[in-house]
Order: sequence, then C-alpha cells, then structure tokens
Amino acid sequence: MAAVDGPTAQAQSTTEKTEFAPKIGRIPIRFLAPQQPEGRWPAKAFAGEAVPFSATIFREGHDLIGGTLVLTSPTGTVTRHRMTPGAPGTDSWHTTALVDTPGAWTYRVEAYTDDWATWLHNAEIKVPAGIDVDVMLAIGRELLARLGTSPTVTDAVATLDDTTLTPVRRLAAVDDPRLAALVAETPLASLTTLSEERPLRVERSRAGLGSWYEFFPRSEGAKKRKDGTWVSGTFRTAAKRLPAVAAMGFDVLYLPPIHPIGRSFRKGPNNTLVAAPGDPGSPWAIGSAEGGHDAIHPELGTVKDFSFFLSAARKNGLEVAIDLALQCSPDHPWVTEHPEWFTTLPDGSIAYAENPPKKYQDIYPINFDNDPEGLRAEILRIVEYWIGVGVTIFRVDNPHTKPLQFWEWLLGVVNTRHPEVVFLAEAFTRPAMMQSLAGVGFQQSYTYFAWRNTKVELEEYLVEVSKETSATFRPNFFVNTPDILTEYLQFGGRPAYKVRAAIAATGSPSWGVYAGYELFESVARPGSEENIDNEKYEFKARDFAGAEAAGDSLAPYLTRLNEIRAQHPALRQLRNLDVHWSDDDSILVYSKYLAPQFTGTGEADGIIVVANVDPHSVRETTVHLDPTRFGFERGAEFTVTDLITQSTFVWGGDNYVRLDAFTEPVHILRVEYPKGP
Amino acid sequence: MAAVDGPTAQAQSTTEKTEFAPKIGRIPIRFLAPQQPEGRWPAKAFAGEAVPFSATIFREGHDLIGGTLVLTSPTGTVTRHRMTPGAPGTDSWHTTALVDTPGAWTYRVEAYTDDWATWLHNAEIKVPAGIDVDVMLAIGRELLARLGTSPTVTDAVATLDDTTLTPVRRLAAVDDPRLAALVAETPLASLTTLSEERPLRVERSRAGLGSWYEFFPRSEGAKKRKDGTWVSGTFRTAAKRLPAVAAMGFDVLYLPPIHPIGRSFRKGPNNTLVAAPGDPGSPWAIGSAEGGHDAIHPELGTVKDFSFFLSAARKNGLEVAIDLALQCSPDHPWVTEHPEWFTTLPDGSIAYAENPPKKYQDIYPINFDNDPEGLRAEILRIVEYWIGVGVTIFRVDNPHTKPLQFWEWLLGVVNTRHPEVVFLAEAFTRPAMMQSLAGVGFQQSYTYFAWRNTKVELEEYLVEVSKETSATFRPNFFVNTPDILTEYLQFGGRPAYKVRAAIAATGSPSWGVYAGYELFESVARPGSEENIDNEKYEFKARDFAGAEAAGDSLAPYLTRLNEIRAQHPALRQLRNLDVHWSDDDSILVYSKYLAPQFTGTGEADGIIVVANVDPHSVRETTVHLDPTRFGFERGAEFTVTDLITQSTFVWGGDNYVRLDAFTEPVHILRVEYPKGP
Repeated sequence: MAAVDGPTAQAQSTTEKTEFAPKIGRIPIRFLAPQQPEGRWPAKAFAGEAVPFSATIFREGHDLIGGTLVLTSPTGTVTRHRMTPGAPGTDSWHTTALVDTPGAWTYRVEAYTDDWATWLHNAEIKVPAGIDVDVMLAIGRELLARLGTSPTVTDAVATLDDTTLTPVRRLAAVDDPRLAALVAETPLASLTTLSEERPLRVERSRAGLGSWYEFFPRSEGAKKRKDGTWVSGTFRTAAKRLPAVAAMGFDVLYLPPIHPIGRSFRKGPNNTLVAAPGDPGSPWAIGSAEGGHDAIHPELGTVKDFSFFLSAARKNGLEVAIDLALQCSPDHPWVTEHPEWFTTLPDGSIAYAENPPKKYQDIYPINFDNDPEGLRAEILRIVEYWIGVGVTIFRVDNPHTKPLQFWEWLLGVVNTRHPEVVFLAEAFTRPAMMQSLAGVGFQQSYTYFAWRNTKVELEEYLVEVSKETSATFRPNFFVNTPDILTEYLQFGGRPAYKVRAAIAATGSPSWGVYAGYELFESVARPGSEENIDNEKYEFKARDFAGAEAAGDSLAPYLTRLNEIRAQHPALRQLRNLDVHWSDDDSILVYSKYLAPQFTGTGEADGIIVVANVDPHSVRETTVHLDPTRFGFERGAEFTVTDLITQSTFVWGGDNYVRLDAFTEPVHILRVEYPKGP
Repeated sequence: MAAVDGPTAQAQSTTEKTEFAPKIGRIPIRFLAPQQPEGRWPAKAFAGEAVPFSATIFREGHDLIGGTLVLTSPTGTVTRHRMTPGAPGTDSWHTTALVDTPGAWTYRVEAYTDDWATWLHNAEIKVPAGIDVDVMLAIGRELLARLGTSPTVTDAVATLDDTTLTPVRRLAAVDDPRLAALVAETPLASLTTLSEERPLRVERSRAGLGSWYEFFPRSEGAKKRKDGTWVSGTFRTAAKRLPAVAAMGFDVLYLPPIHPIGRSFRKGPNNTLVAAPGDPGSPWAIGSAEGGHDAIHPELGTVKDFSFFLSAARKNGLEVAIDLALQCSPDHPWVTEHPEWFTTLPDGSIAYAENPPKKYQDIYPINFDNDPEGLRAEILRIVEYWIGVGVTIFRVDNPHTKPLQFWEWLLGVVNTRHPEVVFLAEAFTRPAMMQSLAGVGFQQSYTYFAWRNTKVELEEYLVEVSKETSATFRPNFFVNTPDILTEYLQFGGRPAYKVRAAIAATGSPSWGVYAGYELFESVARPGSEENIDNEKYEFKARDFAGAEAAGDSLAPYLTRLNEIRAQHPALRQLRNLDVHWSDDDSILVYSKYLAPQFTGTGEADGIIVVANVDPHSVRETTVHLDPTRFGFERGAEFTVTDLITQSTFVWGGDNYVRLDAFTEPVHILRVEYPKGP
C-alpha cells in the first residue's frame, strides 16, 4: 500500500464516503519529537547537531511494525532514517540525524506493518513446531516475490520450494545475510502511514555553540592618573587584549553597552547614588547629549574605532556580541524627542524604573504600549544599524521586563532578514518567562546554572537543559557575570573556580566567563551576590599577565578546557548528555557521546566528566557507569585518559575514584575507542 | 483596551502594519488545561463534573495581573470564572467550573493587567514611606474615575482629595469593602488578552459515573438436570435477578455477548479444546447458523424477550450494557457471505486467531483492511440495530486488536448520531493504546486497577487517573471480571474483597463487580488469573440469597458502598482526589472533596478514605492530612464519621489510626462541615 500524505489524507482511502474523517492514521503515530511544548513555535536545533527524533508508534494486534524518520532539508533534500524501538512497553521509536545546514527543516514519521518480520517471527515458531507448515512456507514465498528477482531472492525461493528438504531446512533459506540486508534496505511494508509534518528550525552553529568571554572595553587599557582619576580604555586599547582572549580559546567576546552614558542620577562606585565627577557610570544607563542606542560612547572612540575593533576581533577568531539594553538614562535623546515611548505620570514627570520602595532614578523604562509601531520601527532600525556596522550577536539585557510579544516580533523580523543574527536572552526570572523567551526566538539564554551547585541540583539541571527543554531553550552556562558572584565562588576558594568552569565548559555547548574569573576575584560587596568595587560603576585595570606569570591565574585551566572542547565534538552537542550514578553525595558524573557517523572523523567521541562539587574536600567513591550510553556493550572494559592530568585508567561498570578538590577536583576523561578496521 | 479575539488577532492592533505577526498575545497565556495530550482530540468531561481549569499567565515587569476563564456552553451561554494564582513561581492560574449539560463546550482564558491591584500594591508601600505621594494619590483618583460615579466611588474620591487629611488617611479611602467588591466584580483591566479557544466535550453523566454489575444471563435461572446437563437461563429468568442487583445499588448491568454461539471448535469447561454436547461454549465465540452479531442466542430468548429484559432493568433503575465483540466463530454467517472480511491464507483457509504457538481455532479475527467500507457499514448497522432495540451502552471487547482508526470512525459516527451512547473499552494493553482508545472517543476504559494493590501502586495510579490522564481517560475500576481473579484476591482472603471494593467504589466514579465477587469466589484455575470452572465455558447457579442469609456474603458491604456513593457527590467526581501521607507502608489515605457551590445542596462534601491494603494484618499508624484539600484551613480540627461503623472521631493534621483487616480494613470517613448560617 502506498504512503498517503498527511494526517487527514491518511484516512482518505477508507473514509471518503463517510461523514466522519478520523484524525489518526491507519497505524497510529503520535508524540513526534522534537517539538516545543504546545507546538506553538518550531522546535530548534543548530547546524551540526545530532538531533534525537522520536515518536510513539503502535498498532492493534500482534503484527510487528517499523518506523522511519523522513527528514526534509531547507533545500528540499529528503533523507530517510530507520527508527529503532525504545524501552519495552513504551511504544516509542527513535533515531538520530545530523542537521548540517541552517534553515527551515521539516520532518515526518512513516510507520508500517513489517510483513517480513511478522512472518519470520511466526514462521520460526510454527514451522519447527510443525504447525501450519505449508501455509507458512507459502506465505514466505509470496513475500519473497515482493522482493524482486535478484539472485539472493531466487536462491531463497529455490530452497523454500525444495520439498526434498525438511520444512526447517526449507525455512533456513531465509537465514541469508544478503536477504536480511535486502529487507533492511527495503522493508516489506504494508499499511504504510505518514504522520503530520513538524517544523525544525536549524540555526547556525553559533546559535548553540560557543565559548564566551566578557570584558568592559573601557577597562582594557584604562590608566589611573596620579590624581586618582582615570583615563578610559578605548576600542583601540581594548583591541590589544583580543589576542590573549583568543589564546584562551574563547570565540565570542561580549561587550557591555558601548553607548553614551547618562549623567543624571549617575551611580557612583559600589552602586552609590552620587557619582563623583570622574566616575564613569553604568554602561546600562544609556543615552546622553552625545546620543542614544545608535551612538558610541565618545570615550571608547568612534564608529570607525568600533569597526576596527570588530575587525581585530575577527582576525583573532572572535565574534563580537554587543548589548541590547532597551532602557534610557534621563538624558537619552528619546526622552525629549519621543516622550510617548515612556510613561508620563499625572504630574507630567516621566516614571523612572522602580520596584517599590526601591527606585532607580538613573533609568527610565520604555513603555511599549503607547506607540508600539513607532517604537518597533526605531528599535528595528537600531538593531539593523549595528548589523550594518558588522555586529551579528546581541546579548539582550533583561528581556523579561519587555513584552514577550515585542520580542517575538523583533526577532521574527530580524531573523527573517538576517538569519545569521544571534540573540542571547539575559533573563533571570521564573521558568514560564525564561522558556517563552526562548520559545519566541532567542537563540540562547542565560540560565539558573550559577545557582545549581550541589550534585543533585546539577544532575537535575543538566538533564533539564539537555533533554527536557532542548527543543526550545539553548543554555549558555556563564560561570560569573558583573551581576553574579555566587556564594559558591565567594566561599569555595580556588577549587570552586575550577569545578564551575569545568562543568560549564563540558556540560553545555555554550559557556561563558566574565573577566576577572581567571584571577579568582571572589570578594563580594557585603550582603550582595556581586563583586565589590563592581566594574559596572568604575574602571578596573587587571594584571592578567602578571598573575599568570606568578602562577596565580586560572587562564591556563580555562585554555585547556577550551582546547578539550575544540578537540571533542561530543562536547559541542547539547542533547547528548547522560548522568551516571556515584555513591558519593558530592561526586557528579555525566558522559557526552557522539556516534562515529556524526563526528566527521568516522570515529566515536566520548567524554566522561567526574566532578567533586564539594570544593572543600577530598572524596573517594565508586562511580557506576552505563557504558551503553557511550558506545559500548554493558559490561565492557575500556580505557579512559584524563585530559587534565593525562593519567590513564582501565574502567568498566564500577570504578574507584578519588578526587582531591585542592589539586584536581574534576576528571575530564576521554574514552578510548578501538580504532576501526 | 478591549479584548481582541483569538491568538493571531490578539496581536493585530500592533502588528497589522508589519511583515511578521507574533503568535503570542500581549499578555502571554499558555498551557491551557484541560487538554488531551497533543490537543488532537477535545478534552473530555461528563455532565455534573466540577472541572479544574488552568493556564500559565505571566507578563513582563512587576505589574500585577489577573485571569478569567471564559466558558461557553453548547447553547452559547458564556460564563466567566475568576482565576486564582497557583503555587508561587509557577505562573499558573486556576479555577473550577461545573459543566452541567452534555455537548460541545469551549473555553478560553482572558488575562489582563490589574491596574487597581498594581497601584494599590505600590501606593501602600510608597505613600506611608512618603515617596511620590501626590503622584500616587493622583493615579488612584484616575483609576477611581474608571469605576464610574456610584456613591462608593464618589466617597472614595472625596477622601482621596481631602488635603486636610494626612496622605495615609487619604489613601485609607480605598480600604472600603464596597470598593473591594466593586473592583473584584469589574477589575480595572488593561492590555486584556484573550487566548485561543479550546474544546471540551461534555458527555452525559453515565459516560463517567456508574456502579456496574456483570452477570451471564444464561446462568441466572439456569438449572441442572438430574443427568448433569443444564437448562439455560433466559432473559425471562435472568430478569428475576434484577431487583437484587438494583437493591445492591448498582445502576448498570453488563451482559456478555448475547448472540448465537459457534459450534466449531467450541471450548469445553476450563478452556479445554473439546466441548461435550451440553457445554454452552464461550459467548465470545459469536455466530452460528442461528445468526451473527445482530441475532440473539435462541437459548436466551427472542428480541422480544430481550426487550422485556431491557424494560425490566429500566424499571429497576438499571441501564443495560451489551458486549460488542468484533470476532466470529467459524460458523458465523459472515464467513460464507463476506470471506473478504477475514484473512484468507494461501491454502484457501481462513486465518484463525493466534499468538504463535497458541492458536484459538474457535475464533476468526476480522481483517479490517480488505473491505473497510463494507465492514464499517455493517458494523455501524449492527450497533444502530441494538441502539434501535434500546441499548445505550456497549462494552467493547478487546478494542486494541482492531484498528484505532476504525474506532475513531465508528464512535465518531455513532456519537454524532446518538450522543447518549456510551462505549467502554475493554483493553488491557500498553499505555499508548489504552490512552489513544480513550482519546479517539471511548467514554470509559477498563484499567490497570486490578494489578495495583500496594499502597505506592495505588497512590500513583489514583493520581494518574484522577489528574494526569483525566482529560482523556475515564477509568472504570472493575474489582474482578470473568478474565481477572488477581492473586491479591486469590490469596488475600475475605478482607481483600472488602479492601478492593471500598477503594474501587470511592477511588473512581465508575466501578464494577462481576457476579460471584460477593460470594468471595477466590479459587483460580491453577497457574491462571481466572476463576476455576470459569463461567465463560459453563453454567453457574449461585445461591446469593442463601449466602447472604448465612452471613457469608459481601452483598451488604457492596450495598453500603453504593449507598455512600449515592449520598456523597464528592465520590461521583473523577478529578477531585488527593493523596495524603501515612507513616505505614500499607495504609493508603486519600480524600475527595466537592466545594459547596458544586454539590447541589449548598454544603461542602468531603470524604477521607483510609485503607489497610495488607489484608493479612492489623496496623496502627499516624495519618497526616492536609485539611486545605477538603475545605479547611491548615491546622483545623474537624469531626469525621466512619460511614461503615458510624464511629465518630475528632481529627486534625495528624491522626492515630488502627485498622484491623479482619474486621473493617477501611475507614470511609465523612467530613462533618459546620452548617452554614
């Protein structure tokens, strides 16, 4: 029976004369994955991902079935991928396919009764038992006839027909590996049913994969004068730091807002309400007489300087992300030109940002409802202006304080015109908003990672981001930011910095570091979760080279992490993470695996991470692995090499581990696969 | 801002001039419930259900929001139900609404910014703190203006305007309960957004609510002759048993197939392959020279006799369910008239049912793919024939061995023409098929209940059926069937029979008993999970009255259970079950609660069930209740009355319980509510 098209069409052959058209196909196919929850927006992937696809397929009775993923690329190329059954009783079927080019992909699942497998199953029980022998052999011959007339088939028919043989010998005709290959290639299918079509939006690899570094350009090359005031760094001086960032293996450089900074109510050091004349102010208080969101802070340079910086970054293999912070200082040109873009109070004043009783008088939030069309046009103009200058990544500040509908519109328009542009959502809020921002189009998102520090928290979160939300939400595991210096880092000592970096770099294909992490900056403004003397409000000149020379820098470790990521395609995937068990409450274990057909080298790639997440301890325990999760049979022995220490171990299902937080708190183990033939 | 219609239309006001239309509304509304998974078929409810509705609603920033369920009845009557927020951080909003009439209901959720609540929250912080006092009071006056000019409003405005008062006193103007009532009635809403519309299919109450009893009419009044052969019971003799069944409080009587039984390969006692001349055969081997699925077994009587039986049942308050078993004995008229409705093998024979190496030669399965149109028409004709005779419930035998697509079609057509008809799916198979049969339209389903016997199993299963699957799947908790005599019943003794009946009758609005349960019939055919001397293959004359007179019958207990169900509307609901904790591994605790507005009496109804599921033990433990689940404040004390023993206890959060399986293994406790004013 030929495949028929679409969920309603499925039923057409049998219902066209009736008043009621079933929505289910002849062979039920349900719960296609990946999908975003509700199916409201397309499932997401990034180029180079090996995407797990699945569906629930079942039929009445005892006949055996098969399933095939039918995947259509943006150019219309159709590939077919045989599915295999999942856990018994689940009726779930699975396959994994590489999506290699960005664009609008679609997929369907085809299900069918496997006539050959059904017959073979029955014949192999009945013929030896002497039940219905002639009928079973006759059915076998009918099925062989559907396979054509190749020598493989005619040989089998001849044996099946040879009445001089015993029935069991005649049936043995089908034990031919060539025949098995033939029916594997072209199943003898009937009742073939095609599911509805589902969309899969594939974006460029940077949408899901990258090592981010954040610095304030004004700090890079900033110099303190003798009178205590500062000379700001510029794009030209900051460019000098690019080779060092690139040498650590980072490939995205994120800059806080580069626009003119307001003077009204400018914040002083440590978020104080009064700024001294030389205080530079928060880059997020955008807009002054020098311009707004389409201008560059004069102290950083000109557009030409910024273009020079972009070009220098590019030469160093670094893509630059700028900040899109949709808020204004009271000095922003919009305040006078477009008061309708703000909220005017009954006394004629413009409402500042507040969370009563706290008020933030250096910031006017935008009102998106007075003139949505005008505002959208202006913001789109600004974004496209920077795209024109050469920016391809926007880190969006606090998107959860602007309407979700606005983001769906803006990202929809921008990505239609500029599909290469990547938006990172800096939202730290409740799950509904976090997931919905990702749902409407943000390519990646800041996460709760910073606050997931215990073994159980990390196990649950790694599974959540790699499995449960992976069709919607792409995590970027920042270990710190100018806003986030967690208690774990404040009080965990240097081991904590290693642990968090190692888990971020191996647990997610996108991770990020804010400058100063490599210097173990761990002192917080008392009672807060931010660095003291926060760079948001002042210049910061750091002696990276000096620290490294003194052996006081984490830069070599960060460099090694990025090297390992570069060498191991399994670490550049989101969905391939599996958690394993250890007997210790603080020893976290997970593996990432990529099968040979997806690595590009033809060889499997597997990494096992074993981390002691208690940074104050030495721990010994047993780690229990399921080797089927990284390409071996259950019970296999294999060699692993620690990519930090270069130690080698022979491991199996149960393995002794000792992790000393004060030396190396994390094993990053390469699984050694036997070389292919 | 006026409500705008539909998910795309929502965005219209702001996007009509742009190239990209967002799918999300101004205030995001997601995850409407109830819905079937995938939303492929409408969510289900039955008339009289108090249905919990929910949605995820959130917005950017700090403004407070509100949500309203907008429910449309089949006649177009629209009711609005204020929603309340769920657990912090979930952004879920909830309400419960009664669906009182069968038909196609729809619902939407409306979300809005609650301007009044937002202002009040801010004003009550800022005004006492002396921040922005004039502006806050001015905003308050603007909001009051939107409330109209009633005395309540003008009083408040006057106080708010009275500059002789302190700001705090002026603000106190809004502490008027009349004002609170006014804004509760008509919220001061802005950015009002309406979700997409979702369907809710409400069926008559019998679709989800009933106490079922099963007997074989041929056994009721059957008499053994002196030679050991039997005189079959008939519809006329079976009708004499109806008052006793009704007296036990059952309201549905289910009859195994009433059609002529095949003679070829007829099964003998205990499923033996050879029947003696007097053996009646299995009623599920349908069809003989006397007719097929539209005929009545001559030994039971005529259509006239059956109509008499239906009428007698009706007079006793019993609705009759007949069996729709789509399979044929080799003697069925279809075998010669429509061989295309079966599978013909290469040797010209018709394939019997088999699960190799087992074969069932008394049964020919139907092939639904050779002539689907013809077969559908004939089966529809048969179903409508019995509907014409007066049958309104069909218990469908093994629906999981026929195409799901066929059932979607059949039930779709039948329920379009006869919305009152109820189909019960007798499928014991994997979850995907079980749920999908319910999904395509089966009004109710047999369940895994028989095999859920431990406390943990029951807790999980009660939550699954009452919550997780309740939009799709309506359970009918049969305690036994002619096919199912579980080990729990075989070896649990008489206490097991009480435990299982009490849980079935209180845990699900539909439950069922197969005749003999009240006689504690517990002997299985060795190695099987069926009664020995199974009634499927022989006559069975039971002395119900004698057993009851001797005190050897569970009938009084079953009667009491059905009385309790009749008196307690909370037990006639599916979705209102909550599990509570006990310290003992075998003491199961759950409550069912119905709020005063849904009971019909204006009084709350609450039942707490505490069951010792270890039928060989006396157990003492502490039961920990969450009284908020049945209408009290946390920490409340209340009186409960055991409806089995009439004992009364004063209970609270933590309660000592002693349950002796050998006397009364189950407390069924009525919660005593203080009488209203």
